[in-house]
Amino acid sequence: MPEQNLKMNLNFADRLLAAIDEKKTPLIVGLDPVYENLPPAITGHRELNDDQDLEVAVDAILEYCTRLLKVVAPLVPAVKINSAFFEQYYWYGMEAFHALVQEAAAHGLIVINDAKRADIGNTSERYASATLADPGFASMDDTVGADAVTVNPYMGSDSLAPFIKTAKEFNKGLFVLVRTSNPGAAEIQDANLSDGNPVYQHVGKLVAKWGAEMIGVRGYSSIGAVVGATNPGQLAALRWLLPQTLFLVPGYGAQGGTAADIAKAFKADKTGAIINSSRAIIYAHKSSQYAGMDWQKAVELATLAAKTEIAQALGMS
Amino acid sequence: MPEQNLKMNLNFADRLLAAIDEKKTPLIVGLDPVYENLPPAITGHRELNDDQDLEVAVDAILEYCTRLLKVVAPLVPAVKINSAFFEQYYWYGMEAFHALVQEAAAHGLIVINDAKRADIGNTSERYASATLADPGFASMDDTVGADAVTVNPYMGSDSLAPFIKTAKEFNKGLFVLVRTSNPGAAEIQDANLSDGNPVYQHVGKLVAKWGAEMIGVRGYSSIGAVVGATNPGQLAALRWLLPQTLFLVPGYGAQGGTAADIAKAFKADKTGAIINSSRAIIYAHKSSQYAGMDWQKAVELATLAAKTEIAQALGMS
Repeated sequence: MPEQNLKMNLNFADRLLAAIDEKKTPLIVGLDPVYENLPPAITGHRELNDDQDLEVAVDAILEYCTRLLKVVAPLVPAVKINSAFFEQYYWYGMEAFHALVQEAAAHGLIVINDAKRADIGNTSERYASATLADPGFASMDDTVGADAVTVNPYMGSDSLAPFIKTAKEFNKGLFVLVRTSNPGAAEIQDANLSDGNPVYQHVGKLVAKWGAEMIGVRGYSSIGAVVGATNPGQLAALRWLLPQTLFLVPGYGAQGGTAADIAKAFKADKTGAIINSSRAIIYAHKSSQYAGMDWQKAVELATLAAKTEIAQALGMS
Repeated sequence: MPEQNLKMNLNFADRLLAAIDEKKTPLIVGLDPVYENLPPAITGHRELNDDQDLEVAVDAILEYCTRLLKVVAPLVPAVKINSAFFEQYYWYGMEAFHALVQEAAAHGLIVINDAKRADIGNTSERYASATLADPGFASMDDTVGADAVTVNPYMGSDSLAPFIKTAKEFNKGLFVLVRTSNPGAAEIQDANLSDGNPVYQHVGKLVAKWGAEMIGVRGYSSIGAVVGATNPGQLAALRWLLPQTLFLVPGYGAQGGTAADIAKAFKADKTGAIINSSRAIIYAHKSSQYAGMDWQKAVELATLAAKTEIAQALGMS
């Protein structure tokens, strides 16, 4: 069976778990490219060396990410592309975003669109089309959308229903913000409700409820949760509370979460989470550890190092 | 002094209040255009009659909105453009979105970008550039960004700090989701905290705190709140709780909020809120009330009718 058909027939959670097994790691690479941080090998090119020129900056970023995908595609199951870093370049950036999704999909990578959208129902329908569905327009016939999108729960069930419907229709997935990795997350997400539980646990239970209809053969739902690595106690509490929910764990590396912290996102069988690393991998060339190396080699080594660290934390190596 | 300079020197809240005074109404028009609902005068045009063609659909929507702005610009202080309805057309749609912002600004309308963004700090910086700042690229020299953007508070202070910084830098504004107008809003926003108050009031107090540094000469902050018209009791509670916060009130008209409901968003001096109406105005040509009329006339009459209804509810007519 051609890969495309396989993909279309499999529950997103099952696809993601199969990719994790194949690449032997729950590590995923986050693409949030900033022109200023690109290696001189890219920005030094005579056509790509003017960051005040919108199209030049976008071209450089797309070129960098395209080459980076070739390095990481054999090593990790998925990439998370951060929509904001493309949106900042207006429509030029959005065209590059979609080009990058096609590149990643062509490599067989699962693509998570980190867009953190949500609105009232009829607007969320449009966001689900824009961020998750495969495009339905004749002129975009061979274009695919991302495999999953991150969404914000503040507006409740009906604001996410169109995303869930789209995920079902295309065998795709969602990751709902539950407990994020930033310092200010505590202000609302950790506020205690009258039943004694914090808001993030209330939201976690809603995510489990929304996901109950999309459980795959491996026992996980295609509706996952974003849970930061920066608070391991909360990670452990949520892991216990939500046995069928896959966690997308940001905050590993640059944001301060350690490999020991992220181990709490997993069950005893070493399943249950994907761990995102962005800056430590995509800007590896800036680390003294990889000084003087070709940037692609630095990316490869940083990816392998993160894989090893996570495997050790999970007792898998 | 040229208008552009005036604009740049005035606090956003003061600019909005001056525009409300000038147009003698707190009504604003929401642009969330759907191709299927456009009048035959637009979609029947031989170059605009194929909704399966992405570029045709975008051209038709932009043409419609551009003409509609000419009708409503003399009547209302502001328009709210819903980003999702443009994002669904990918980069073609985003180019049209920015073209429409230029059109609205050229008419002297205040433009609210209804994008409901937020992320961790370094990502929110990018979103603040994309959705609110005036573009800083040489090739977009004469392009302006929106005057305000809607943002989601779930991730807390540091997730909104870059939007606040951008708002200060460009004398623009924010509207933070506090209590939205959709049915599912109750699930998280109305959950009671251990102090006996619901989450939305906790968020409301944070909005007042964030806004304290951006109070204009009229006593209102440039950081406002989105508060739905569909629950007048909550609207009244928040009006009392947040005396310096301007409310952006959706849900009037198509979503069920009445003019009597929205009166609770205002103080005794008739200030304190803007009331958004989208579908009842932009699709006025589909109402039996305006059957057989030119669509522009229908839009004009529907806008005037909403203005009258709101003025009556506020005891101003």
